[in-house]
Amino acid sequence: MLKYLTGNPDMKLTSNSDVITRDYFDSLLVETRYLDSVLPSTEFTLFGETFSTPIMTAALSHLDNTASDGMVTYARAATQVGAVHWVGMGSDEELERILATGARTIKIIKPHADNKEVFRKIEHAVKAGCFAVGMDIDHAFNSEGGYDSVFGLPMKAKSTEELREFVQAAGIPFIVKGVLSPRDADKCLDAGCSGIVVSHHHGMIQYAVPPLMALPDILFVVGGEIPVFVDCGIESGMDAYKCLALGATAVSVGRHLMPLLKHGADAVADRIYAMTTELAGVMARTGVSSLSAMDPTVIHKRNF
Amino acid sequence: MLKYLTGNPDMKLTSNSDVITRDYFDSLLVETRYLDSVLPSTEFTLFGETFSTPIMTAALSHLDNTASDGMVTYARAATQVGAVHWVGMGSDEELERILATGARTIKIIKPHADNKEVFRKIEHAVKAGCFAVGMDIDHAFNSEGGYDSVFGLPMKAKSTEELREFVQAAGIPFIVKGVLSPRDADKCLDAGCSGIVVSHHHGMIQYAVPPLMALPDILFVVGGEIPVFVDCGIESGMDAYKCLALGATAVSVGRHLMPLLKHGADAVADRIYAMTTELAGVMARTGVSSLSAMDPTVIHKRNF
Amino acid sequence: MLKYLTGNPDMKLTSNSDVITRDYFDSLLVETRYLDSVLPSTEFTLFGETFSTPIMTAALSHLDNTASDGMVTYARAATQVGAVHWVGMGSDEELERILATGARTIKIIKPHADNKEVFRKIEHAVKAGCFAVGMDIDHAFNSEGGYDSVFGLPMKAKSTEELREFVQAAGIPFIVKGVLSPRDADKCLDAGCSGIVVSHHHGMIQYAVPPLMALPDILFVVGGEIPVFVDCGIESGMDAYKCLALGATAVSVGRHLMPLLKHGADAVADRIYAMTTELAGVMARTGVSSLSAMDPTVIHKRNF
Amino acid sequence: MLKYLTGNPDMKLTSNSDVITRDYFDSLLVETRYLDSVLPSTEFTLFGETFSTPIMTAALSHLDNTASDGMVTYARAATQVGAVHWVGMGSDEELERILATGARTIKIIKPHADNKEVFRKIEHAVKAGCFAVGMDIDHAFNSEGGYDSVFGLPMKAKSTEELREFVQAAGIPFIVKGVLSPRDADKCLDAGCSGIVVSHHHGMIQYAVPPLMALPDILFVVGGEIPVFVDCGIESGMDAYKCLALGATAVSVGRHLMPLLKHGADAVADRIYAMTTELAGVMARTGVSSLSAMDPTVIHKRNF
Repeated sequence: MLKYLTGNPDMKLTSNSDVITRDYFDSLLVETRYLDSVLPSTEFTLFGETFSTPIMTAALSHLDNTASDGMVTYARAATQVGAVHWVGMGSDEELERILATGARTIKIIKPHADNKEVFRKIEHAVKAGCFAVGMDIDHAFNSEGGYDSVFGLPMKAKSTEELREFVQAAGIPFIVKGVLSPRDADKCLDAGCSGIVVSHHHGMIQYAVPPLMALPDILFVVGGEIPVFVDCGIESGMDAYKCLALGATAVSVGRHLMPLLKHGADAVADRIYAMTTELAGVMARTGVSSLSAMDPTVIHKRNF
Repeated sequence: MLKYLTGNPDMKLTSNSDVITRDYFDSLLVETRYLDSVLPSTEFTLFGETFSTPIMTAALSHLDNTASDGMVTYARAATQVGAVHWVGMGSDEELERILATGARTIKIIKPHADNKEVFRKIEHAVKAGCFAVGMDIDHAFNSEGGYDSVFGLPMKAKSTEELREFVQAAGIPFIVKGVLSPRDADKCLDAGCSGIVVSHHHGMIQYAVPPLMALPDILFVVGGEIPVFVDCGIESGMDAYKCLALGATAVSVGRHLMPLLKHGADAVADRIYAMTTELAGVMARTGVSSLSAMDPTVIHKRNF
Repeated sequence: MLKYLTGNPDMKLTSNSDVITRDYFDSLLVETRYLDSVLPSTEFTLFGETFSTPIMTAALSHLDNTASDGMVTYARAATQVGAVHWVGMGSDEELERILATGARTIKIIKPHADNKEVFRKIEHAVKAGCFAVGMDIDHAFNSEGGYDSVFGLPMKAKSTEELREFVQAAGIPFIVKGVLSPRDADKCLDAGCSGIVVSHHHGMIQYAVPPLMALPDILFVVGGEIPVFVDCGIESGMDAYKCLALGATAVSVGRHLMPLLKHGADAVADRIYAMTTELAGVMARTGVSSLSAMDPTVIHKRNF
Repeated sequence: MLKYLTGNPDMKLTSNSDVITRDYFDSLLVETRYLDSVLPSTEFTLFGETFSTPIMTAALSHLDNTASDGMVTYARAATQVGAVHWVGMGSDEELERILATGARTIKIIKPHADNKEVFRKIEHAVKAGCFAVGMDIDHAFNSEGGYDSVFGLPMKAKSTEELREFVQAAGIPFIVKGVLSPRDADKCLDAGCSGIVVSHHHGMIQYAVPPLMALPDILFVVGGEIPVFVDCGIESGMDAYKCLALGATAVSVGRHLMPLLKHGADAVADRIYAMTTELAGVMARTGVSSLSAMDPTVIHKRNF
């Protein structure tokens, strides 16, 4: 079971997709640009709100085995460091406690077989104060060709038409998580989504194309109309930089932060902050003054 | 001796061609497609008959050292799981016992130097109820530039003309196993064959091109006129998926199943079933509803 | 801290950029050309002066922990072997003692935040007898997105305009060290610089493009107008040859020499001499009679 | 010292060029072609004489430390197996004893600084009954950019003009060994040579282009006018096949045979014979009936 490895303090790569994704990050090199470079800003604007960093928390779920009240601790960390906070599966009550920390939160809802539950979750998330909602569409199937079941709840793949209804019901930005194909990205646009997370859900399928390898074709389809986020395997400011330089709007970090949760919100916030300063360091050394000044020609592919 | 490694419960890769073939499988990545995806069907139709899975048994021979009455056990497993069954060298009596299990069987005949033996074997297979016959042409030579001898019987390479005569004698579909070259594939078409198995016979020659790497050029030559099967090194539903996505009609699994034979037909059938559900899982996650909906653009080549 | 690893007798690669750079060197192969080849000359002319070798010392700093009076020992070695000598950070008094060895010296000045200090250092270097000066622009930032501080002195990135002022103040050739981008190279030309050192400062940034991989695009921009030197990871005459064959004017060696400093100037001079004879050996075997006869078609990229 | 490693029974790869050459062999894959294939012939014709195999001995020298009277034992092995025999440095008397075995011998002469010695050696070889002579031009220089000295005798690089004089003096076919560049190949043609050995002299220079990688460009320049042989690192009939399929006229094997010399001529002859049958085996399985029917499209480059 790859999906619920929370609570494991010595997080290991759990799918060969994670290993392949790491190899892809490591195959990308950077050229420096020092002349006329200035101190960079990592200020990040999303849906009209401004944040300190484009390094966001990832939509984790069920962190109680990882740390006491882990989901709230996680939200507190994001709030402290001025990062966009994402949250995965959980009760309405838990979401309310998360939002009470002040975290600017994007709620990711599972693709429940019962669409009424989806609509109810959307309505609650909006009312509770999330500034965006979304769905991780990659949780629809299990590994045996049937529909998935998560904590006993039946899942089901969603059609573009159903997605359009979710978008309309939300009223606030609706984001699809788990896109690894230009085809799915195109359908997200059709359905009126406000954002896409390029992700293989930390290796839910083996031999997945690394998100960063899939990014260029997805960006081509999206054509700048909505933000495109990158998820999976990001462990450093350098990893984040490579995603942003190649066109990602922002990145999500989850697995890398989980082992820190048991040390409290400060430890998690410190790590996000350190990754952000490392990102800033690479920006400075490559002549990039702000996120909008990112330039893909800084990146070179190893061919040796 | 690479050819008769049966009976070894800890089957290892026995030729560098097997290692190279594994590397090639591992170099292929997949992109997911979740939106509008439905529960997939693995139903497979061959020569007018319908099967539960495109994962077929491979044409193994002489399994008595592997498991008691191994050849019949193997056939029983294929029958149980609704898979096409292939059978290699063996006596007429053994073939009849195999067919008595109800296995829908394709009999592969060795390239005997004595064509009369070939014709006799074809006639018996047809009469006994095989729904296709064929020949593993890659057993013609030994590794020293002479003709091979199998269990004391002399072998010989076959001409396109001889192949045509076998095809006509059979009357039922005739399949050539051991094609790794567009040139041989073209000759199979000329001779009127009804199918091709792309295979290096689990590494009979060292440094063999992996079947899946040879597949595109062979498919180009075949032009959709006859089914093209892929053999060698398939160990998972993901491996099978990659073959099918790149255009194979179906795949054969042999070495991977052999160590299970001693645990009985159920163990073998269970493994074929598990590989089929894994295949279905990948189909679901890549938006492929049936074998006829396979799409090669899902596959990406590692270049890092 | 990657920057001041002096004093460590067992110098190890300290950044993955160093490892990547080594891999790149190792990916380049040479073809031999024996017919009509003659004994080669490694004579090297720079800014009107003639040297015995295109293998130069690199601009190291603060070598006192490495060897007693290390900076002067280092200069003595360069003088003995007839190599261009480069010197990094240090006091005016130290520079004068270095020049007293007779070393033909290029002084590299840090990008001090206080330009008055830069101008003062330039003026002193010129007066003291350096035959060129320059700046390592890659020391502007720290790894956290702020300006660097070196031995307590604040640094700052320089604009092309400031660079132009330094060039004019110098009067003698002004060289920019730390260029890894055609963009910075172009700005160096604009500012009137007399030379460029392609370098990632032995891995100051992780995942840096290897200098030799960056060289062709930089040479294209420079168009032969000024010399282009290559720095980082050169450990043999073969490494030097590859740089020169691909268009570098000369190369710098620093880290590779440091462990020898504690054995005295002779040991360092001997190593530069040995690398030069090895370079000559490769020149002879590839039909290159002098540095001006270098030919990039001798070099082949591994693709296997 | 890479050059005289004879006498070492556990021959190891002695230069990274040998390792790189092995990697290149291993990167080449073959496709099988069984239909219409016949029993192949390895008969090989050179300069009007017919041999049993295109696998020739390499021009080794000074084998006395390897085996008692090693040079003569080596010749006896070639004679027994019907292979072309090559011989390197040695006394006139030794050459006569070699020829007395009946070995059809090609004598390779060192590039002596003193051309009179070269002419004298040519004259002796012709008179003694060699059916071709030649020179290993890659022995001209040492690794330090000077001329080489072999067993106290001074060497020197040869001009195309000098080569022409050697060719004319010989009267019998003159072959240049140590070509790794189309440029040298072109000069050999100009000088009237009758053959070329593509070789890096088992790694005399580090990072040498593998001979088989250099072969296509050299064949393009040679345009079929003279035979082109491949040397270095051949250890199997498969290695030989790859060279021949890609256009080599024949191959030389030396280092691989040396450890067998101490077991006598039979052991060496047996190994050449076994490599030849292995070559025949690959020919049979790839539909190649004779050396003149070799087809480069059988070979595929690994790209994974």
